[in-house]
Amino acid sequence: MHTHTIFVISDGTGITAETFGTAIMAQFDTKSRLVRIPFVDTMDKVHQAVRQINHVAESESHKPIVFTTLVNQDMLDLIESQCKGKVFDMFGTFVRPLELELGQKSLHRVGRFADISESKEYLERMEAINYTLAHDDGQTHQDLTGADVILVGVSRSGKTPTSLYLAMQFGLKVANYPLIPEDFERKQLPPALVPSRKKLFGLTIDPQRLSSIRNERRPDSKYASLVNCRYEVAEAESMMRRSGIPWLSSTTKSIEEIATTILQEVLPQHLGH
Amino acid sequence: MHTHTIFVISDGTGITAETFGTAIMAQFDTKSRLVRIPFVDTMDKVHQAVRQINHVAESESHKPIVFTTLVNQDMLDLIESQCKGKVFDMFGTFVRPLELELGQKSLHRVGRFADISESKEYLERMEAINYTLAHDDGQTHQDLTGADVILVGVSRSGKTPTSLYLAMQFGLKVANYPLIPEDFERKQLPPALVPSRKKLFGLTIDPQRLSSIRNERRPDSKYASLVNCRYEVAEAESMMRRSGIPWLSSTTKSIEEIATTILQEVLPQHLGH
Repeated sequence: MHTHTIFVISDGTGITAETFGTAIMAQFDTKSRLVRIPFVDTMDKVHQAVRQINHVAESESHKPIVFTTLVNQDMLDLIESQCKGKVFDMFGTFVRPLELELGQKSLHRVGRFADISESKEYLERMEAINYTLAHDDGQTHQDLTGADVILVGVSRSGKTPTSLYLAMQFGLKVANYPLIPEDFERKQLPPALVPSRKKLFGLTIDPQRLSSIRNERRPDSKYASLVNCRYEVAEAESMMRRSGIPWLSSTTKSIEEIATTILQEVLPQHLGH
Repeated sequence: MHTHTIFVISDGTGITAETFGTAIMAQFDTKSRLVRIPFVDTMDKVHQAVRQINHVAESESHKPIVFTTLVNQDMLDLIESQCKGKVFDMFGTFVRPLELELGQKSLHRVGRFADISESKEYLERMEAINYTLAHDDGQTHQDLTGADVILVGVSRSGKTPTSLYLAMQFGLKVANYPLIPEDFERKQLPPALVPSRKKLFGLTIDPQRLSSIRNERRPDSKYASLVNCRYEVAEAESMMRRSGIPWLSSTTKSIEEIATTILQEVLPQHLGH
């Protein structure tokens, strides 16, 4: 295993470039340390970044890898000519051929748009986060018809993180509702959910894993026991099956994967379809 | 303004590729509709995607733009040879020159790693989300020493969404604490925060904007009045100044920008520095 330092240089936050760079580096059997340098929007800050990269280049045995998303050509030229790392221009690499394809010059818009926090999308996203927090864990039946999706599942099956992710990433209003022993005894969905059946999506989870998650919260409780987890999961799954609710198991999936599957099943229009 | 359809084809969720593609397209004066096709991990799904792209190519006047992050070479070849869009291979474009730079072949790992949900990072992220929810809005003083950051600011200055973003994106445990009129009268930080002073970061906001945000919640209240908002913001800012707490104004910033600035100021090690 080699150790490489990977720099991400951006005139904005560099968060997307970091995620993308990490995914690319995961294709190599290389241990890497990632250094993000955000808000590089003056020549002075470019000089500082170059110094930082060159310091690493001189003290480590491997040439640093530098991913940039700088839009300003002078800044990019400075990085490319002065720094002792291997530079990958993530933006220009695609923007230049796109200029040809689209038959227009790019706008060279730097980093951010001044009024981002006043944009309609941004305000919707804030509203979605507020809605989702207020409707976490069945806290209220009010305004359930305003939800884009309602997640159901046993306690600790992943509903809360998935709801928050959907709100934050996609601006969706997500309610989530625990299925509890009373629901299983009645063999019926919580009555408040019946009018919104079309918006329901279920999460299930491997009973063994559920038991270990619950044990961290309440060790040695009936709630966390494998016998009880098996019972609750089996009842929840058969309720979803009976009610025709689409569902998936969260056991081996990341939040991003669960969220994307929910969009495919319940809200394909949010994928653009 | 031209209208273009942009496809994002991924063997994983395609969320990063979508964000990245959106940032690239923002460099053009082009109205675009983005269609994300996730989990394309069989030849059959590649054929389906090609059909979908070609259908658009035939019915629209502009050639669709196709961003792919497929790792499997056969799948990529099929897209490139059969589809009538302009294909940009987001992954290979960087992976091939990196193979030369690093002197090794890439691993051709597809999409996801089977045990992602059991990874240490993932479990830490879940724990961070739980911590952050439990410590939202000053709900509890317990275990404040366990926080990575504690955000302070007047009600509705953006603490909750920022906290959740930091937890979800970076796996940080974030508590947040409202500054309320009682604190201003005492002219002192809430006593529970004093031992954790080094972890504090303040959010402030333009009083006019604060008033309009609060008015949506509680129209025509004293709480939302401009006079009161001006008073609270001035008091909060002078308290932060007096206590030496770093702070920024959330007024025109996105959550990502606020979060990145907090990392720079309070937790530079999380940027790799």
